Amino acid sequence: MDNVVVEEPLQIRLRRGGSDEALAVTMRTPGADLELAAGFLLAEGVITEPGQLREVIVCGDRTLTPRQRANTVVATVDDRAETPQRLLDRRFTMSSACGVCGSTQLDDLRERGVTNVAPTTHSAERLAQLTDELPARQKVFSKTGGLHAAALFTPDLELRRVREDVGRHNAVDKVIGAALMAGELPLDGWTLVCSGRIGYEIVQKAVVAGVSALVAVSAPTSLALDTAHEFGLTVVAFARNGVGTTY
Amino acid sequence: MDNVVVEEPLQIRLRRGGSDEALAVTMRTPGADLELAAGFLLAEGVITEPGQLREVIVCGDRTLTPRQRANTVVATVDDRAETPQRLLDRRFTMSSACGVCGSTQLDDLRERGVTNVAPTTHSAERLAQLTDELPARQKVFSKTGGLHAAALFTPDLELRRVREDVGRHNAVDKVIGAALMAGELPLDGWTLVCSGRIGYEIVQKAVVAGVSALVAVSAPTSLALDTAHEFGLTVVAFARNGVGTTY
Repeated sequence: MDNVVVEEPLQIRLRRGGSDEALAVTMRTPGADLELAAGFLLAEGVITEPGQLREVIVCGDRTLTPRQRANTVVATVDDRAETPQRLLDRRFTMSSACGVCGSTQLDDLRERGVTNVAPTTHSAERLAQLTDELPARQKVFSKTGGLHAAALFTPDLELRRVREDVGRHNAVDKVIGAALMAGELPLDGWTLVCSGRIGYEIVQKAVVAGVSALVAVSAPTSLALDTAHEFGLTVVAFARNGVGTTY
Repeated sequence: MDNVVVEEPLQIRLRRGGSDEALAVTMRTPGADLELAAGFLLAEGVITEPGQLREVIVCGDRTLTPRQRANTVVATVDDRAETPQRLLDRRFTMSSACGVCGSTQLDDLRERGVTNVAPTTHSAERLAQLTDELPARQKVFSKTGGLHAAALFTPDLELRRVREDVGRHNAVDKVIGAALMAGELPLDGWTLVCSGRIGYEIVQKAVVAGVSALVAVSAPTSLALDTAHEFGLTVVAFARNGVGTTY
């Protein structure tokens, strides 16, 4: 018998002014679902500051089966939060903010009010050692080989928390959502460490949360590096055994 | 100077009855964009058979910049194709087809008319050797370390085509889209080989295309295996050096 990592869909519902809207369905590993929802709302720009998120709960809708309820979370946001329709409109508008070339992706982040992150105070060599601390803290990875991890280190490089998920993006949303719910944002001076590759969306989540450095085991992409440079985020990729490539 | 894998957004527009709708934006590695769009439409159920896709072209809209046009494809589909709104409604309806528990994910595939795949005629040992053929055929991976690959092998286990992308899902959409455009669907007896992990969405793409076996270098998830069993798809995971785990 093999241990297999669990994957199930999670629906995120947005409650705003008393009415519910379906926002997204993501395939995720169950666990830390409220944190996942909080991190997702922040990364996607539904909320632009932690105070706009009033509550995140597991769905209590009695017309659903227990399993459906366990796979549905309801986030109550205030009137300043974006609606799903406005998010869609923004994404699909084919004007200068068309969303189909890299420069407008950056413009979009600027328009959302995302500002430059604080510079990291640590050397690339020191940052490249951080991935070595991950495996011992991953509960499920060693059993299944199937989970990604994301971790947040304090400005003193103390490992504060780790989250795991079948998806890289979910793991990052979970760990940043946990920090948001703990009142730690913005994460000036903190370092985000990921087990996988660094694409644009990982950098987006990092700069929106305000971390100062991003360290990953694998390769970065062009648009990820462009975005990191634009917002002053230090990136260390291919980080293993204290050696990495700095961008 | 490091080589870095390119990542840019691709917008897929749906043309149906003379009007255009934005369907999706995906972050991808440029190249094989028309195949990516074709494979995406099939996997998501926008089209349920190849004949519903009339044409896929790079966008010619002169109000866009050249770079925006290069990152936009227009797929012309016939009247039987689903609209984005109907896809959204299906995804977000909280009834029996609510999309938030595994069983309804399977029901959704059945409702779309997806049927069981033909059984593979090859042994697990033989299938587990196929991942060894990938690295030599990947053009970019060896330079950047940042690309996933997906490959299709014929019923005689001849390697027919390989596609690469920063995203696992995109690589699979590209290689299946290429087969679709070559008139090869359904892929009875064929084998799909992937460089990464096997989540639900990878299995969904495989069974919709009708391949008989799915082989991957890394781990499967629970919902991926449930779906594979439901549709008769053979899965070989952790496949390296001719050794793998069969599910």
